[in-house]
Amino acid sequence: MPEPIGTAAALRSAYSAGELTTLDVADRVLTALGDRTGNPIWISTVPAAQLRARAAELYDRRDEMAALPLYGVPFAVKDNIDLAGLPTTAGCPEFAYRPDRTAGVLTRLLDAGAMLVGKTNLDQFATGLTGTRSPYGTCESVFGGGLIAGGSSSGSAVAVATGLVSFTLGTDTAGSGRVPAACNGIVGMKPSRGLLSVAGVVPACRSLDCVSIFTHTPDDADTVFRVACGVDPDDPWARPLPADRSVARPPGTLRLGLPRAEDLDFFGDLGQRDRFTVGQDRVAALVGETEPVGLRPLFEAGDLLYQGPWVAERLADLDDFLRRRPEAVLPVTRKVLEAGRRYDAAQVFRARHRLQELRAWADRLWRRIDVLVVPTVGTTFTIEEIDEDPIGRNTMLGRYTQFANLLDLAAVTVPNGFTEAGRPASLTLVGPAFSDITLIQLAAALTVGPTVSGPAVAEPTLSSPTPSGPSVPGPTLSGPSLSGPGLRGPSVPGPTPAARTAAGGSAATVAGSSDAFGDDWMLLAVVGRHLSGESRNAELIERDAILAGVGRTAPLYRLYRLPSEDGVGLPTLVRVGPADGAAIEIELWRLPVGAIGGLLAGVPAPLSLGWLRLHDGREVLGFLGEAYAADDEVEDITATGGWRAYRQATRTGRPSPV
Amino acid sequence: MPEPIGTAAALRSAYSAGELTTLDVADRVLTALGDRTGNPIWISTVPAAQLRARAAELYDRRDEMAALPLYGVPFAVKDNIDLAGLPTTAGCPEFAYRPDRTAGVLTRLLDAGAMLVGKTNLDQFATGLTGTRSPYGTCESVFGGGLIAGGSSSGSAVAVATGLVSFTLGTDTAGSGRVPAACNGIVGMKPSRGLLSVAGVVPACRSLDCVSIFTHTPDDADTVFRVACGVDPDDPWARPLPADRSVARPPGTLRLGLPRAEDLDFFGDLGQRDRFTVGQDRVAALVGETEPVGLRPLFEAGDLLYQGPWVAERLADLDDFLRRRPEAVLPVTRKVLEAGRRYDAAQVFRARHRLQELRAWADRLWRRIDVLVVPTVGTTFTIEEIDEDPIGRNTMLGRYTQFANLLDLAAVTVPNGFTEAGRPASLTLVGPAFSDITLIQLAAALTVGPTVSGPAVAEPTLSSPTPSGPSVPGPTLSGPSLSGPGLRGPSVPGPTPAARTAAGGSAATVAGSSDAFGDDWMLLAVVGRHLSGESRNAELIERDAILAGVGRTAPLYRLYRLPSEDGVGLPTLVRVGPADGAAIEIELWRLPVGAIGGLLAGVPAPLSLGWLRLHDGREVLGFLGEAYAADDEVEDITATGGWRAYRQATRTGRPSPV
Repeated sequence: MPEPIGTAAALRSAYSAGELTTLDVADRVLTALGDRTGNPIWISTVPAAQLRARAAELYDRRDEMAALPLYGVPFAVKDNIDLAGLPTTAGCPEFAYRPDRTAGVLTRLLDAGAMLVGKTNLDQFATGLTGTRSPYGTCESVFGGGLIAGGSSSGSAVAVATGLVSFTLGTDTAGSGRVPAACNGIVGMKPSRGLLSVAGVVPACRSLDCVSIFTHTPDDADTVFRVACGVDPDDPWARPLPADRSVARPPGTLRLGLPRAEDLDFFGDLGQRDRFTVGQDRVAALVGETEPVGLRPLFEAGDLLYQGPWVAERLADLDDFLRRRPEAVLPVTRKVLEAGRRYDAAQVFRARHRLQELRAWADRLWRRIDVLVVPTVGTTFTIEEIDEDPIGRNTMLGRYTQFANLLDLAAVTVPNGFTEAGRPASLTLVGPAFSDITLIQLAAALTVGPTVSGPAVAEPTLSSPTPSGPSVPGPTLSGPSLSGPGLRGPSVPGPTPAARTAAGGSAATVAGSSDAFGDDWMLLAVVGRHLSGESRNAELIERDAILAGVGRTAPLYRLYRLPSEDGVGLPTLVRVGPADGAAIEIELWRLPVGAIGGLLAGVPAPLSLGWLRLHDGREVLGFLGEAYAADDEVEDITATGGWRAYRQATRTGRPSPV
Repeated sequence: MPEPIGTAAALRSAYSAGELTTLDVADRVLTALGDRTGNPIWISTVPAAQLRARAAELYDRRDEMAALPLYGVPFAVKDNIDLAGLPTTAGCPEFAYRPDRTAGVLTRLLDAGAMLVGKTNLDQFATGLTGTRSPYGTCESVFGGGLIAGGSSSGSAVAVATGLVSFTLGTDTAGSGRVPAACNGIVGMKPSRGLLSVAGVVPACRSLDCVSIFTHTPDDADTVFRVACGVDPDDPWARPLPADRSVARPPGTLRLGLPRAEDLDFFGDLGQRDRFTVGQDRVAALVGETEPVGLRPLFEAGDLLYQGPWVAERLADLDDFLRRRPEAVLPVTRKVLEAGRRYDAAQVFRARHRLQELRAWADRLWRRIDVLVVPTVGTTFTIEEIDEDPIGRNTMLGRYTQFANLLDLAAVTVPNGFTEAGRPASLTLVGPAFSDITLIQLAAALTVGPTVSGPAVAEPTLSSPTPSGPSVPGPTLSGPSLSGPGLRGPSVPGPTPAARTAAGGSAATVAGSSDAFGDDWMLLAVVGRHLSGESRNAELIERDAILAGVGRTAPLYRLYRLPSEDGVGLPTLVRVGPADGAAIEIELWRLPVGAIGGLLAGVPAPLSLGWLRLHDGREVLGFLGEAYAADDEVEDITATGGWRAYRQATRTGRPSPV
């Protein structure tokens, strides 16, 4: 068994440090692919010579590494996504075709330096959540024991979980990007519909289909998502990510919805119930507030998919094939698809009208909460159990996933330890459309967050990153009998870049990472009542500002304390020039450019927003005071060096040094 | 024939001046209603005693007039909108029911002081564009001659056109709010879907239905729209008007799409073709630029409505009734509705997928243009002509309207004079969702805009407003034989409030009209390079700022001219206090609060945005300079009184008085 491929982040470090080349990684991947004795992960693979040529090309371009966010990262895609040169089967050999063009979303990843390894197994036509509906064979969960790998993106999930590649693409119409993540202990992201192009993807339900992402860590999901995300003119369903959603809201500002216990059904699996209790407590510990939420309207929306006329949407594209080649379709898949023929046009519209009512309900929900936590699956099944009741148990698997597609939501699935019986547990963070980045960051915080005291089951161990990547158990090493509670957890090297920034990196760090932010964001220097912990800081937080660093002004300013109604005083910076000026402590905040006006509207005269010179020479927006206000009766607190020091001094009773 | 009821604007003036009371207007309405010998406009009317009681109530509340934007304005609603106390028939006596609750949109109008007169005739179940499909009789156009009134909101359009009320509500699923406006020479507005509540409205196609507005003038449409617009929790289709869309983009900044001649079909009506040419030239003269646009994808989207499976959406609500009481439905209506039974579920999804492609096409169109001008109808028909081919000619009437519903667009229909044959002509301004206010203002500019030289047909005369309201021809006075070209045009008292503001009212005027603007707008005082005509003024215009007035600062400031790279100088205001200060000329601009940050980002140090005190005591946002910059080497131009005066002096070679 070759060493598992690490995370994209770990590969990047190793490449940067010169410890590894793309040629090494290609060889390691090819060695692993040579062993086809295990799970039927692959439907087709890129020829070895072609993969080596790609690795060589990237090796020659190693000077461009910094500009290629996925430089040399091996990945795979579900075989319902087109790659020019390999057939697209959608899990049905008779349906297969050879596309002329590579799917837009794939092109974006390749352009960012990723190395494509092959195309993965799936439930036929991406219809199903079990991973057992493929003529190419059934994948077993990476945890063994006859457990299903989940579907429909079974091969993509197992390819990541076994360490064959750093990430994979799946698709998600009812949960196909989340259920397999749950079954294999990895991260699964179902982006908001329209953010990742579906041009060149075999349609399941066009109005619901998403390309999804499997990774080991939320950090990697963030990287892949940002690269993959982009409006494709060939995708009529494309939507841009609104500019103000490209940075996460800090977890501490979020309102979390917790499902009412009576709405949760674990189908008798008390171990999953217990794990979910632990997991939701861990999420709750990270957020600002929590609120109980009833889930019934969500379930009703989800049930429209297979228990209602939405199943006919699959026929819109497949009916011709189904009528011409019924024998080419698996019996269970045929049965599911043919159910769509029972519905007439008026029933579709009636369902659409009901869905609109449920969407309006959900819109009201998203005014009360920012994120909802749910189990990813209520229970897990063995392949044998699915075979006994392939449709009924598939429905159970979709309970907590399919509503997200119907209601236009985003979701991120993360591992949640193991049940006492050794089954993998998982939870999913769900938010409204375009909350993707906030969900990823909350997931990142969760996987490095504080341990909540008192769970009956030990928390997953948080392993440190190693140069060779996270330790990922291979399928032969980690059957449920070996991987009991506490043996395996998410392997996250650290918080995401956004989290580091929010935690207060230096100003220099911020400048260095400015490529992550565009013209839609501005840096704002604050010196007084807007500082963290001060009374007006909330005005920044509520405008989605994030702390971007701390520092000092250039030595050109004086700081005055104007009187204020509340007696605290209004610290005010006035530029006076080098002769009389001092360097004053500031905090730098990054906030959406559109929020500046509203912030300014609430600030009293004589404060204004202008340009403030920092100690490092940068000029950033900042609060300034008009000089006229700094008359002789106003307290000059320049010598304290900053408002925080002044407050500290006055709080502790010591006289101000001025 | 009693004197016609005027516009809402004219009534407001008369009420304010004490020349008229609500009791007078109620009496005038009741007299007109007493004459039922003409068109079958009404299905039911509010009892006389009830209307008089409402008028008396409003008379008692005349002190509140200023707070009630529709104080004492008589109006009517299409009889598919619920009013507690009167039956809702939807044009089908057997379908009628007595609602317990009044529709949300109606409640908003009543709360604003409007007086409801009654409920108007319509094509049964709002299905049709002819006005000939009602068991309550067929309305003739206000212009007589056997012309159809258009539908489905026939009674609502004729009630306005004949001066019985100031405005009416209709509905618009395929053009029902525009075709009757075209047939009766009035303004018809189809708002963006979701802005006006459809709770308490009999559904036609729920996913497309809009409540529409008929008025004499765009100004009145603006007033009614702003009152009627609002999210209703009972309407699952509700969408809020985004804050930045509540003020119009000035016509001169708009890019107008002009249909390619080969895509326009007037069904042989050359008179309509000629009028449209004149009309589109008049629109083109108002906008910033024009661009030819192909209409085929729009028509394809529109054809999904009656020539595709969308017709089945009507069955979602009506099929039960249709099956129980087929004899209660008019044969033509039954035929149209039953066509929906031909489609299966997969066909609906296929049509939805095609519509998505067409919507993507339209989205790209709206990146190139802001407004599209089309004929409202290609030709007009007599009632007899419709009877000969009720379905085929109905389809022709919808050619230029129904695509707006399928593609989620807004539209405003305005009169466009008359053909040489004396038939009314009309054009429709179409824009993307939420362009409503911009469309209304363009319509307002059009109806008072410059006359384009050279049309073969004389322009409609623009009549001046009179205290008793615009002169509206009654049906007995203005058959086509009498109302030839030039005899009738829109009677618009003046530009809309927004237009007046944009033209530069005094600061006092602006303060007085500030109720039209909310917290999403800020006043900004500019003193130098951002003044009208100065080089940085474009930075305001491109952020949708409108000039809100001119004035002076309080006498507290000095004005300096800092050096600038281009040699012109950077005028900079510094507050110094009453001893040394002077009053400096400013312009006040109103701009979206979200635009402040972007504006500030482009402004160089030492300028900042802070609070500037005006001569009238108000404190508004304004450009200020940091005092440190005003050192001895900087030119003090305070004595000129302002940058414009300084520039004038230096341009004419006269030395600056300083």
